Amino acid sequence: MDALDHALATTGSAAYAAYGTSSDANTRYLTSFRTSDPIIYLKRSHEEGIVVVPAMEVERAAMESPCTVISRADAGFFDILKEEPDPLKATGRVIADLAGGPILVPPEFPLGLAEAITPYQPIQVDMDTLSAMRSQKSASEISMMRESQAAAEDALETALALIRRSTPTGELLVTPEGKILTSEDVRYGIHATLLKHGCRGVDTIVASGSETSVVHLRGTGPLAANAPIIIDIFPQNEETGYFADMTRTVVRGEASPEIREMYDAVSDAQKCAFSLLRAGADGSDLYRAVVSLFADAGYGTEPDGFVHSLGHGVGIEVHEAPSLSARGGALAAGNVVTIEPGLYYPGIGGVRIEDMALVTDVGYDRITRFPEVFCI
Amino acid sequence: MDALDHALATTGSAAYAAYGTSSDANTRYLTSFRTSDPIIYLKRSHEEGIVVVPAMEVERAAMESPCTVISRADAGFFDILKEEPDPLKATGRVIADLAGGPILVPPEFPLGLAEAITPYQPIQVDMDTLSAMRSQKSASEISMMRESQAAAEDALETALALIRRSTPTGELLVTPEGKILTSEDVRYGIHATLLKHGCRGVDTIVASGSETSVVHLRGTGPLAANAPIIIDIFPQNEETGYFADMTRTVVRGEASPEIREMYDAVSDAQKCAFSLLRAGADGSDLYRAVVSLFADAGYGTEPDGFVHSLGHGVGIEVHEAPSLSARGGALAAGNVVTIEPGLYYPGIGGVRIEDMALVTDVGYDRITRFPEVFCI
Repeated sequence: MDALDHALATTGSAAYAAYGTSSDANTRYLTSFRTSDPIIYLKRSHEEGIVVVPAMEVERAAMESPCTVISRADAGFFDILKEEPDPLKATGRVIADLAGGPILVPPEFPLGLAEAITPYQPIQVDMDTLSAMRSQKSASEISMMRESQAAAEDALETALALIRRSTPTGELLVTPEGKILTSEDVRYGIHATLLKHGCRGVDTIVASGSETSVVHLRGTGPLAANAPIIIDIFPQNEETGYFADMTRTVVRGEASPEIREMYDAVSDAQKCAFSLLRAGADGSDLYRAVVSLFADAGYGTEPDGFVHSLGHGVGIEVHEAPSLSARGGALAAGNVVTIEPGLYYPGIGGVRIEDMALVTDVGYDRITRFPEVFCI
Repeated sequence: MDALDHALATTGSAAYAAYGTSSDANTRYLTSFRTSDPIIYLKRSHEEGIVVVPAMEVERAAMESPCTVISRADAGFFDILKEEPDPLKATGRVIADLAGGPILVPPEFPLGLAEAITPYQPIQVDMDTLSAMRSQKSASEISMMRESQAAAEDALETALALIRRSTPTGELLVTPEGKILTSEDVRYGIHATLLKHGCRGVDTIVASGSETSVVHLRGTGPLAANAPIIIDIFPQNEETGYFADMTRTVVRGEASPEIREMYDAVSDAQKCAFSLLRAGADGSDLYRAVVSLFADAGYGTEPDGFVHSLGHGVGIEVHEAPSLSARGGALAAGNVVTIEPGLYYPGIGGVRIEDMALVTDVGYDRITRFPEVFCI
């Protein structure tokens, strides 16, 4: 939390605040408390963080959160409600009272609550401190992400086993039981495996054939034989909240020459990007190197081709800082990022390969253990 | 969207805006688009809603969202970036340009983005319109919630079957295979069943014995025999985003007299609350009736006893408006709410029963079909 203290000192603020349910990644990161009701996080300069919860949650919060736990009652919420019956306004005053001076918040802080605070204390947005803190993974965060990655890889094994045991029959894949293998079958297999690891898969992509040229289409119906199947798995561990993120593109049967060439270019692009990945490099340099490599192979960036960024940070959100895009930004030791070049052409299909790695001073430590796999 | 038009007219605003990933319930509700990257929703007066997404997402958004889909490029984002390289500031200007006048936003709108908009257009928080819209379920929303409820009930069947097949042995439950039945076993059974219904369970509670006196403790380790087991399931359908929410408290073996009395009081409280549930009633009236009934039976509200509210709205968030608490608020036809009285005493345990119902003009339509169940 030194970075928050530094930001407080720099801006002359008395306290840093966040507010939300566990769906708000900032609040979950700062409190490690899981709840469907919004809670207050507040950290005064050079003090431990405080979490303010309903009285009935105090005991559980004390078990789950490293923060000092205070009940809403003890924070004065109900006394303030007597004068200010609007609960959001009363919450604003609780935060102002706890802070005792100017307040610093992340950009995602809710505007309605900010307006409830400003009659009592000034409030200022801190753009980057929390995002930078979240992008610098601790040893324990890295270990939690390795667990999520292990779940993703086990789930991918399940998916590939389902595809391998099915036989290309015309344009479809047919199981040994004589059923047509669908996107839904494979997605269910993936999610069931993730569940065994205490992870949940959300919006998992199992897209095939013409679907694959639309980047994030999740896929539905029969899987295509002799055509790309993109499997993109990004599980979140229910307990820890940390994600992993990986993608493989496979063909059951024969790949067309176009898809084969695209696959080789994407594979080369990933190797090129990894060769440049280290602390101190800029995400935009890696992105541009891949754009240039693709251009040499005859692939552009719009309207089709390499239409997305090269990668992104992963953590308590599946997409977070840093960005490996045209805009980029410096990469630092402790970042966990994906390297995921892809090519997409309507009428032909799409190919994407995505691995996750920890950035180090001398290069990287690949967190993804799963090998490349293409025609199966 | 008439309510949004009304709010725009009342406040003299040109457009209503929201911003976030699918984790932001407002954005998901307004766009029906699922994404891990934040998107813009904007609705000008008496026009259809617009969703602004990266170019690579335009085709998918057009399939998933009823909104008019515009790419960031077509919305001018990249032209603005040339003058204003900060992407959040550029996003603010995109929203201001699209609105063409004063902007209205929900209270959860991010402060950082609001500050990026105000140099170009004034911005005002609308406290209640969207929350009220979300609390008024359409026929199709109700049908989606019935699906989630069916999943919850099937999952509860799985849980009860696991408990029933185990035998009270000392203070524990032992399976026919001779293993000690745990909270984790039952939670896994619940989540696996939810998965078959396309739903995910998050933070599902399977707590027993002394754990049950801490309201939202999820539970861990061996389940207790002859003691309350609280099972609280609130699945979200992955496709639709809609939740259900239900709780049963069961005892495998013999319940103590204290727990039996608490169960009877909670069951009576739920019946009492349902007898008062109808459009036009106030949530606080139902809450107070239950507090009074509990008081007559010798149970208070603090520090132990009936420590939480009587219920809450359910929808695209598991906790949303209206509230059936001391504060309350008018109930309207089309609300879907839980009725969930509970009692919690350290050293004795906890009991909660939760059903979900659609509020109607003449009363309610219970969405929960699962019967009461106690000693099993």
